[in-house]
Amino acid sequence: MPLNVTQKLIKEHLMSGEMIPGTEIGLRIDQTLTQDATGTMVMLELEAMGLDYAKTEASAQYVDHNLIQVDSKNPDDHLFLQSATRRFGLYYSRPGNGVSHPVHMQRLAKPGKTLLGSDSHTCANGCMGMLAMGAGGIDVAMAIAGEPFYVKMPKVWGVKLTGELPEWVSAKDVIFELLKRHDVKGGVGKVIEYYGPGLKNLSAMDRHVIANMGAELGATGTVFPSDEEVKRFLNDQDREKDWMELKADRDATYDLEEEINLSELEPLIAKPSSPGNVVPVKEIAGEPIYQSYVGSSANPGFRDFAIASEIVKGKQIADGISFDINPTSRQMLTDLVNEGHVANLLQAGARLHQAGCNGCIGMGQAPATGRNSLRTTPRNFPGRSGTKEDSVFLCSPETAAASALTGVITDPRTLKMDYPKIKKPKKPTIDMNLLDAPLDPEQARQVELYKGPNIASIPEMDELPDQLELPVLLKMADNISTDEILAGGARVLPFRSNLPEISKFTFEIVDESYYERSMAIKGKGGHAVIGGFNYGQGSSREHAALAPRFLGLRAALVKDFARIHWQNLVNFGILPLTFVNEEDYAKINQGDVLQLTDLRNKIQQGNEFSISIKGKNQTIAVQHALSGRQVEMMLKGGLINWVRERQNAAKT
Amino acid sequence: MPLNVTQKLIKEHLMSGEMIPGTEIGLRIDQTLTQDATGTMVMLELEAMGLDYAKTEASAQYVDHNLIQVDSKNPDDHLFLQSATRRFGLYYSRPGNGVSHPVHMQRLAKPGKTLLGSDSHTCANGCMGMLAMGAGGIDVAMAIAGEPFYVKMPKVWGVKLTGELPEWVSAKDVIFELLKRHDVKGGVGKVIEYYGPGLKNLSAMDRHVIANMGAELGATGTVFPSDEEVKRFLNDQDREKDWMELKADRDATYDLEEEINLSELEPLIAKPSSPGNVVPVKEIAGEPIYQSYVGSSANPGFRDFAIASEIVKGKQIADGISFDINPTSRQMLTDLVNEGHVANLLQAGARLHQAGCNGCIGMGQAPATGRNSLRTTPRNFPGRSGTKEDSVFLCSPETAAASALTGVITDPRTLKMDYPKIKKPKKPTIDMNLLDAPLDPEQARQVELYKGPNIASIPEMDELPDQLELPVLLKMADNISTDEILAGGARVLPFRSNLPEISKFTFEIVDESYYERSMAIKGKGGHAVIGGFNYGQGSSREHAALAPRFLGLRAALVKDFARIHWQNLVNFGILPLTFVNEEDYAKINQGDVLQLTDLRNKIQQGNEFSISIKGKNQTIAVQHALSGRQVEMMLKGGLINWVRERQNAAKT
Repeated sequence: MPLNVTQKLIKEHLMSGEMIPGTEIGLRIDQTLTQDATGTMVMLELEAMGLDYAKTEASAQYVDHNLIQVDSKNPDDHLFLQSATRRFGLYYSRPGNGVSHPVHMQRLAKPGKTLLGSDSHTCANGCMGMLAMGAGGIDVAMAIAGEPFYVKMPKVWGVKLTGELPEWVSAKDVIFELLKRHDVKGGVGKVIEYYGPGLKNLSAMDRHVIANMGAELGATGTVFPSDEEVKRFLNDQDREKDWMELKADRDATYDLEEEINLSELEPLIAKPSSPGNVVPVKEIAGEPIYQSYVGSSANPGFRDFAIASEIVKGKQIADGISFDINPTSRQMLTDLVNEGHVANLLQAGARLHQAGCNGCIGMGQAPATGRNSLRTTPRNFPGRSGTKEDSVFLCSPETAAASALTGVITDPRTLKMDYPKIKKPKKPTIDMNLLDAPLDPEQARQVELYKGPNIASIPEMDELPDQLELPVLLKMADNISTDEILAGGARVLPFRSNLPEISKFTFEIVDESYYERSMAIKGKGGHAVIGGFNYGQGSSREHAALAPRFLGLRAALVKDFARIHWQNLVNFGILPLTFVNEEDYAKINQGDVLQLTDLRNKIQQGNEFSISIKGKNQTIAVQHALSGRQVEMMLKGGLINWVRERQNAAKT
Repeated sequence: MPLNVTQKLIKEHLMSGEMIPGTEIGLRIDQTLTQDATGTMVMLELEAMGLDYAKTEASAQYVDHNLIQVDSKNPDDHLFLQSATRRFGLYYSRPGNGVSHPVHMQRLAKPGKTLLGSDSHTCANGCMGMLAMGAGGIDVAMAIAGEPFYVKMPKVWGVKLTGELPEWVSAKDVIFELLKRHDVKGGVGKVIEYYGPGLKNLSAMDRHVIANMGAELGATGTVFPSDEEVKRFLNDQDREKDWMELKADRDATYDLEEEINLSELEPLIAKPSSPGNVVPVKEIAGEPIYQSYVGSSANPGFRDFAIASEIVKGKQIADGISFDINPTSRQMLTDLVNEGHVANLLQAGARLHQAGCNGCIGMGQAPATGRNSLRTTPRNFPGRSGTKEDSVFLCSPETAAASALTGVITDPRTLKMDYPKIKKPKKPTIDMNLLDAPLDPEQARQVELYKGPNIASIPEMDELPDQLELPVLLKMADNISTDEILAGGARVLPFRSNLPEISKFTFEIVDESYYERSMAIKGKGGHAVIGGFNYGQGSSREHAALAPRFLGLRAALVKDFARIHWQNLVNFGILPLTFVNEEDYAKINQGDVLQLTDLRNKIQQGNEFSISIKGKNQTIAVQHALSGRQVEMMLKGGLINWVRERQNAAKT
């Protein structure tokens, strides 16, 4: 059977399951990527699992998110991450080296491989002929420990590119076109695979732009073939030996088909406050702006900065505009310096920031209240910029630079100048020091983890007891989100590496007394919560399971669960139960005590069993949806314990 | 009588008083400088005074402190400052243009002029043959409004420089030598004036380094002559027309005399946690470091970065070191880019930050807990870095760069290399856009102040009533500091432009109930506080007077006052009284009500009068130390009201 690129990658890495869209498959993971915001917990999970040494071909930890050091927390975390990478055999990218996705592409990405990353834009490296996917932290920790990644087999959505981009239109406008057609859920359950004659004029970094924002369509991944352009890119990076050709078979088919004629595209822009809110720039031209911002993993290439530089060269940005330049890596910043582009940008009035994610994830560069900000970043969700009442537009570097000059949203085609031709550096800078190489296993075993005062190990989690008496500490309504279970934001996230501290915020939005009430009975057999429909919707953050578990939550009994939170509960050994009869929800009150007996047998023997309410002479039928593997994990107290046993068994 | 440079500058600007050290003189101010941390309040004060247009020759507002934009507060402040500079006829330096002191030196400083700045390192521009002094915000507001600056006539401390700096020793080591000899109070009440044959090998920017840290000796100012080197500097800036020669007369004398033989100096370093804690670098060589940091107004010159670049060129910094480069201006950063130094630094592993104050004032780049940080900045007071348990050393760029390479504190003379010769740029970049020029008065009057949600105008302050009944809301012990009256730090300072908000923190450290108790009786005639000796010691922040005044404080009755806080109380219309008989302190209790009658007459007629305690049939003799001018201000409710009347009178 002829295969497309996605199918080839999956077939090559299939450990379990069948390639039937919608069914669970297990994939071998070759490479992993973690960033510092999610990575500290991943490293603590590796410690808790008792990992000896990474089992992947290459795993890299990047420090690109929390670069603002207003106190000791972030630098302490950096030192912790450095020690953990040395201990577990990972690559370490120091603060200031740059954003994970382009640095990974430059130094480690390889056609034909799988990459799992604890960052939703991990899909960007699909531009290199890889199957690259974002996931939760513990999924990545598992992959580092050599376990398969379980995911539903995606549909493959073939997008045929034809034609050639007109002047003043660039790669960003291609992904905007797809978002304009299909909005932010158009890619759910799919891998987007690009092919066709239009590819030949898109550089590897252009493809990175397009692959990156596959995340904004909700796609499982984005895949490009590995062709001569990928070979050229790797050659520039002195890594030609890492290239292999990977193309779809001649008669390969796709589950869904789409075509984009590049020649017909025009400059597009996503209005506040969704990446799917796309219109032609010309429709809203003339709106005054406060900020123009070039950078992030959604426009990380040399040409993205160079085109902005050539547009503003010898001119001055409009009065009062904040023109923020966030370089993506030290290597690329060096090229921009050497080719004169940094000088152009500075002289036009730019603010040059440290290489990193910065404003793209609300770490600095927040706009003034209610003022329009134009950004080449991938997301404009409300408040993500750091400013509560923000107004963020997403656009190409051409549109950002043109608007910086005029002070209003500007279709770059209306500038009175020729479209600049970008001269590539003859030989791009190669910075081998972007990534500190892993220690060998013997050296690694000598390393002790460095933990500053804000870093606490993950506490031990006990096995699932056979008998439980669980007071119901909360009874909640429908649609409780993970933001309500454990909030995000600058007040809470600095404690991301410290479970005892972050757990103080658990359920704070639902009921401020929860933390104190749970602490009062902590260690006395645990407690339960009751919920309605769609329990745990929203963000994937695993702290929303870890923190309640730390406080003694053993079971959540609800009408139904949101998918990712359900997975997180399973991973951290909290029993996720649903009512067999939804009307039983009314029979349980906050303060009741649930009695679960012969539990270990019951969850192994079937999916349905009964529990009783103490002193009420009443039983409730409940069910679980755990697979055999998941039941085994649950009995051991969660994924960390389960893996630790396997790791220990492998050592002996 | 032959005069030294300081005496010439003072004589030329003397508006009142006599040049007798220790007595008050009033000086005409030609130029002012404000930065954004202190400037927002200065602009609000100008608004409250009803200023029409700046009366100085040049006044510039720099945005260099609060560059981290994690939410809308800082960018909103930037827009406010921009609108205020346009309204009042000031220069505006946008965020990212650089640090006030070197930018002012490049674009506006003129030999023979006076400069008053709401930043303690304003003295740096003394390198240009100016009398440059730091002061409180309202003092600078007054100067902008054309009022004299009142200060005690300083002694002039002549420091004769002989010899020539050896290799690996630079300007920073000169000021360290003076700090080693005289510690952090050695310059109080003095202007330090440098002269002698050693000057000829010190560039204008080298002199900036030395002048800047006069603040660390507590000096009123630092003065260098205006010679051929200053002419060369201005010529490089296309400002040769601004030069004039200004030298001491041949037989000029000094109140104190000192000599430093430059040839005998060696690399010096200030250990934690005082700039006066100076030892030779060789004495502590070998101590491991976490961070090496080059930048700030204490080492702002092209050569300071270029020497670091030449030292690390072609090498890699030691493993795990954070090598932070904070450029001082866009103009200089452009030169560093063009001359290849930025590429050298990046390739060696540096983190390149936005031009500005940054880590020097705890805005980012905080070190990890307990780890050693080497910095070319001027101050290492405990916690100033942002990290509570910090360990900051101050040093030259040579020592910082050498230590970045080795990972331990390193005397740069021990590096196995020749001392690099720095090639100056043939023609330094001139960036005219560093400063937006003032509008003309007609245009300025059309501008409305832009105030984001975090900016509140200064409320009206009423005249001093003739009769007062003041409940004593607090009775305090000796040595209450302004930090206890109104704390600093990241929790409080974001509200620096919002008196109603920042006042909520007033006396919080002394008594958490003060704010609520004062609000309960606000508008009902005011209240008083009682204190002991040295009341109001520490930081000069004027919020420590403004906030209590906003809450209704009308009189502070204490054993004695610290000088600057006393001045701030007077400026904001709070009556500063001391006991004639200190033992009367015991007669007043918290909760007593002080009765002040016929008050307006009494304070005009003499310095001593009596007050009574309501219901106690007891009188207390009190005194004030106000001058005639200050009595007039007090009657009107403070300096703002007093100036507003004068401004209005001038208009009609």
